[in-house]
Amino acid sequence: MANLYDKAYDFEKAMRESDEFNGLKAAYEAVMGNAEAKALFEEFRDTQMSLQEKQMNGEEITEEEVQKANEIVEKVQKDSLISKLMEEEYRLNTIINEISGIITKPLEELYSAE
Amino acid sequence: MANLYDKAYDFEKAMRESDEFNGLKAAYEAVMGNAEAKALFEEFRDTQMSLQEKQMNGEEITEEEVQKANEIVEKVQKDSLISKLMEEEYRLNTIINEISGIITKPLEELYSAE
Repeated sequence: MANLYDKAYDFEKAMRESDEFNGLKAAYEAVMGNAEAKALFEEFRDTQMSLQEKQMNGEEITEEEVQKANEIVEKVQKDSLISKLMEEEYRLNTIINEISGIITKPLEELYSAE
Repeated sequence: MANLYDKAYDFEKAMRESDEFNGLKAAYEAVMGNAEAKALFEEFRDTQMSLQEKQMNGEEITEEEVQKANEIVEKVQKDSLISKLMEEEYRLNTIINEISGIITKPLEELYSAE
């Protein structure tokens, strides 16, 4: 058991030192350091979350809300700092998904046997 | 990047060699090697999944279904092979949750900063 946790901490350390994480960190800090980009990014996050919540609760999403969300997405795409951040998020998420597949492979193999 | 994958494979190897994984594997194989326990375990899984699906789709779960599910749970609890398997599953799941917290800590810290 100690061994598993050791390996997890090794991984955490490698994550902190990786180009991918530091790329994301720099992009995040660039957005947070720019008042306009920060406000837009937070508006975008809030909108996404509120729409997701409604969807999960089976609530109806109005035409107006869809339009508002689209407008924010358009603004976000035009903001170079946020676009960069999203690129970096996508890059790291892809890696994390692959890694989570590697890590859970023993369990998947076990349960798919027979 | 190579480094992150290396660490993930190290972790996978440690998982395969761990007492926890091998305990789960032995318990799973013991259930699968016993026709009666295997059938009961599969019935239990199918029932749980079908109830979960209904819940997620907002479908109503009938009194009869609840009763049937309870009966299976009772039978499962009395089966020593399946009880052992569930104990081992719980043990490994707890570790995996803790480890997933360790691994995603850098990201969590980044996004909760400021």
